[in-house]
Amino acid sequence: MEIKNSEAVTKGSKAVIDREQLLAHWQGHRALTRRVIEAFPEEKLFGFQIGGMRPFSEMVKELLAIAVPGAKGLATNVWEKLNEEIDLGKSKAEILYHWDQATEDINYWWSQIPLERFQEELLAFGQYKDKGFCTLLYFIDNEIHHRGQGYVYLRSLGVEPPSFWER
Amino acid sequence: MEIKNSEAVTKGSKAVIDREQLLAHWQGHRALTRRVIEAFPEEKLFGFQIGGMRPFSEMVKELLAIAVPGAKGLATNVWEKLNEEIDLGKSKAEILYHWDQATEDINYWWSQIPLERFQEELLAFGQYKDKGFCTLLYFIDNEIHHRGQGYVYLRSLGVEPPSFWER
Repeated sequence: MEIKNSEAVTKGSKAVIDREQLLAHWQGHRALTRRVIEAFPEEKLFGFQIGGMRPFSEMVKELLAIAVPGAKGLATNVWEKLNEEIDLGKSKAEILYHWDQATEDINYWWSQIPLERFQEELLAFGQYKDKGFCTLLYFIDNEIHHRGQGYVYLRSLGVEPPSFWER
Repeated sequence: MEIKNSEAVTKGSKAVIDREQLLAHWQGHRALTRRVIEAFPEEKLFGFQIGGMRPFSEMVKELLAIAVPGAKGLATNVWEKLNEEIDLGKSKAEILYHWDQATEDINYWWSQIPLERFQEELLAFGQYKDKGFCTLLYFIDNEIHHRGQGYVYLRSLGVEPPSFWER
């Protein structure tokens, strides 16, 4: 079914968020996550955990495994399997380098996402069935969720986390 | 400036999410948060914390202080000061009662939010300046953030939290 751009969301009649606003929302959250990564003492980033959970570096690995392949998937609707076995190196600087690369790559792919994709039913990573906008919100929500966990790690380490409301 | 419904988001031309989808997204998250509240052993809900942070019951109090007054504020654009001094009682059952009341009240006020409100600049709670959709996403993101912290509390207590992807 062909959906005209002007009708992408239930004929546009009840739409509340546009695509550039959604990208800005995502990248705003990613900027905050970057500051959370920066706030970790380097060895704690890779070695500290609570309750059997992963170190924050491993959560960041998951976020990076999702972000660019996710944006590319939304643009192309060609999905590869989720691959969390990516090598981010062993330093905070390397992680931040990959994070900043991803920021650029997300912007690149975002501009190529067809507007109707957000309302299409997708099988993200060949596995997760949902509408495009739900898939994207899931990426963002998953990041907020794990970053919130990173805040507990930081507080537990006696480190003041960045303010949640600053993006 | 009068904005027609069909033009609520940059003339509707780049819109990706509609209002009912946004409500479903919020209430889906609230259903998950309800399960996280339920998962806490009662005395830990009120007494357990990590790193000097609040017990999860206090975070839930913040979420309830925001949710219905926030939805009502979006509907009326009349904002009272944020009031976190609400009495939720001292039992999990009472907190869940208030949570379920809020679920109904949010639905009530949601249906009265003028569509153009999502793109208007607001001063939420007389204090937080942002567009309507950003204000609403902030409510949701703040809930995900604190709930993620609740997950660390649960894991630290040896309790398996509900799956993040179930809404």
